[in-house]
Parts: sequence; C-alpha cells; structure tokens
Amino acid sequence: MAEENGRQGEPCVRSKTGGTLTKGDVVVLTLRLLCMATSVTAMSFMVTARQVSAASFYGFQLRLHSKWSFSYSFEYLVGVTATATAYSLLQLLIAGSRLLVKKSPVIPSRNQAWLVFAGDQILAYAMMSAGSAASGVANLNRTGIRHTALPNFCKSLDSFCDHVTVSIAFTFFSCVMYAAAAVQDVIWLSTH
Amino acid sequence: MAEENGRQGEPCVRSKTGGTLTKGDVVVLTLRLLCMATSVTAMSFMVTARQVSAASFYGFQLRLHSKWSFSYSFEYLVGVTATATAYSLLQLLIAGSRLLVKKSPVIPSRNQAWLVFAGDQILAYAMMSAGSAASGVANLNRTGIRHTALPNFCKSLDSFCDHVTVSIAFTFFSCVMYAAAAVQDVIWLSTH
Repeated sequence: MAEENGRQGEPCVRSKTGGTLTKGDVVVLTLRLLCMATSVTAMSFMVTARQVSAASFYGFQLRLHSKWSFSYSFEYLVGVTATATAYSLLQLLIAGSRLLVKKSPVIPSRNQAWLVFAGDQILAYAMMSAGSAASGVANLNRTGIRHTALPNFCKSLDSFCDHVTVSIAFTFFSCVMYAAAAVQDVIWLSTH
Repeated sequence: MAEENGRQGEPCVRSKTGGTLTKGDVVVLTLRLLCMATSVTAMSFMVTARQVSAASFYGFQLRLHSKWSFSYSFEYLVGVTATATAYSLLQLLIAGSRLLVKKSPVIPSRNQAWLVFAGDQILAYAMMSAGSAASGVANLNRTGIRHTALPNFCKSLDSFCDHVTVSIAFTFFSCVMYAAAAVQDVIWLSTH
C-alpha cells in the first residue's frame, strides 16, 4: 500500500511540523509521558512491598514474612511494568528526537503507525493481565480463601497489602493509558 | 466526517455484496463464530467445575468442597464469558441479517465500525483480565501459597483444577480472537 500522508479530511501532521508542536504531537507526547509515569509508579510500589509480621490462627503463632517476590503474580506484575517502562521511554526518546532534532512528524509512515499500534495493544493487554492476576491474589489475601477457613492475612500485613493495592491501581490506570495510546494510533491510521 | 466507502486502495465491500459473500465477510463471520464458540466453551468448563474431596495437612483431616462460585475470580470469569457470548451472538445475528436479508455489507458505516471496534477491544481486555485473575488464583491452588506453608490443593481436587485450567485456556484463546476482531476493525477503518 502506498503512503498517502495528508490525503484528505484531517489536517496533515507532516505539513505543519516546521518547528512548532501540533495538537496531535502534544497528545502523543503527553500520553507517552503518562504511560511511563504510571508504569514506574506501579513498579516501584510493588518492589517496595515487603513486611514481616506475626499472626495467630487455630491457636498457632505463625511468623508471616511477606515479600512481592513470593507470589508469581506479583513477580509478573513487576516484569510487565518494567517492560512497559522501557518501551515507553524508548517511544518517548524516538518521538522526542523526531520532533526536536529531525523536525519530522512523530509517526512518519503507515507501517510505523501499525508497529506502534501493535506495541501499545500488546502492552495494554499485558498491563490488564498483570493487574488482574495480582488483584486475584491480593483479593484472596484480603478475604481469606473461602473454601478453606484461612484467616485474613491483611490484618497482620497491612503495609504490604497497601503497597500491593496501590501498585495494582496504578497498573490498571497504566492499562487505560496504553489503551488510549492504541486508540490514538487507530485514529491516525483511519485518517491518513 | 463524511462517509467515504471504497475510497481507494482496498476493494470496496459494499459494491461487491450482490448476494455472494466476499472474503472480508467470511473472515468477519468466522471470527465472530470462533469468538462465540470459545466463550461458550470457557464458560461451560468453569460452570461445571466442582468437586468434594478430603485432604490432610499438619495431621488434620480437612473436607475440601470446591466449586467455581467460591472464588470471586472464577465468578468474574463466568460473568465475562457470559457477556462475551451474548455480545458475539448479537454481532453474529446483526451481521447475518445484514448479509442474508438486507444484502448490505457487514459494516455499513465508519461510526458503526468504531462502535464494533470499541466493543471488541473492551471484550478482549475483559477476557484478558478474567483469564489472568483466574489463573492467578488457580496457580496459587496448584503450588500452594509460598509465604505460608499451605499444601497443594490440586492433589486432592484434580478434576476441579482440570476444569478450571481448560476454562482459563479457552478464555485466553477467546481473548486472542477478540483482539483479532479488533485488528480486523482497524484494518477496515484504515482502508475506508
């Protein structure tokens, strides 16, 4: 398929970038910044989640040592958010260098737009997956497991659970940001 | 934005539907059918997951009564797959009636394409979320919780765990189908 930038309808981005930022560029850069900020926040809250505490159930005294790396789901969340941070940083650097150094548009061609769309989609799905997996486990911690009679771990591990909750919240917010970035890419594709 | 069907490049769907199915129509219908089939399979495997068994740990004899509705994550998976099934059935009925009764294209306008894209995206995210939340919990069941010393529930609840695993696998497959449907919508949007 031939490149047909600025075909008709929407204002063409390429023709406008003579040094000043267009509205579209600002939206793209803001979204990338938000993606990176939320991913970093989610990751750092999860990585700092650790606590040692004691709980008694059935008359036993149990020493509870909680750390994010004890749960596969939380490890997965850290992996996904770290990947997302690296991806966003890369995208931001590419977009920044195109805009400021080369004075070319953020998305130069349809192929690149498809590539960015694929990346954003995959990260949005990964974020949703990480957030859900972690919240499935966190919810279990908070309520106890219903088919056996386990106690509520979060009574004795309040700081750990708070860190995990904040991290999950930011993961979902990050997912929304990547989904918005993907929609932005679709808008680009549908108008160029 | 004005409707500009069959502007250039790709073959126009509207001009070709004079009773016979185009390749695009077949792809859309096949995807919708696959979406519905995988959603129904995921839901039915989860709904039939129940087992009563006994396990001993620390010398106690525990009666384990497992059912999908005892876990929020599994309930969520059933809710999402049920919604997805209903949505796919509706889409299939709409597409079928357009093609066979009205002899009009499957996607008549850009606005409708955006609507279908939004629906597919949301369901793909929901499927990913449901599968991940359920597999977070199922993984916990399978390995025991690492920060306390709980036993492996799946040794005594093998049939329950198998049902859950198959259901989760179909949920993820279903997510891929909805993601493919969303990409199909983007291709439509980018060429019309």
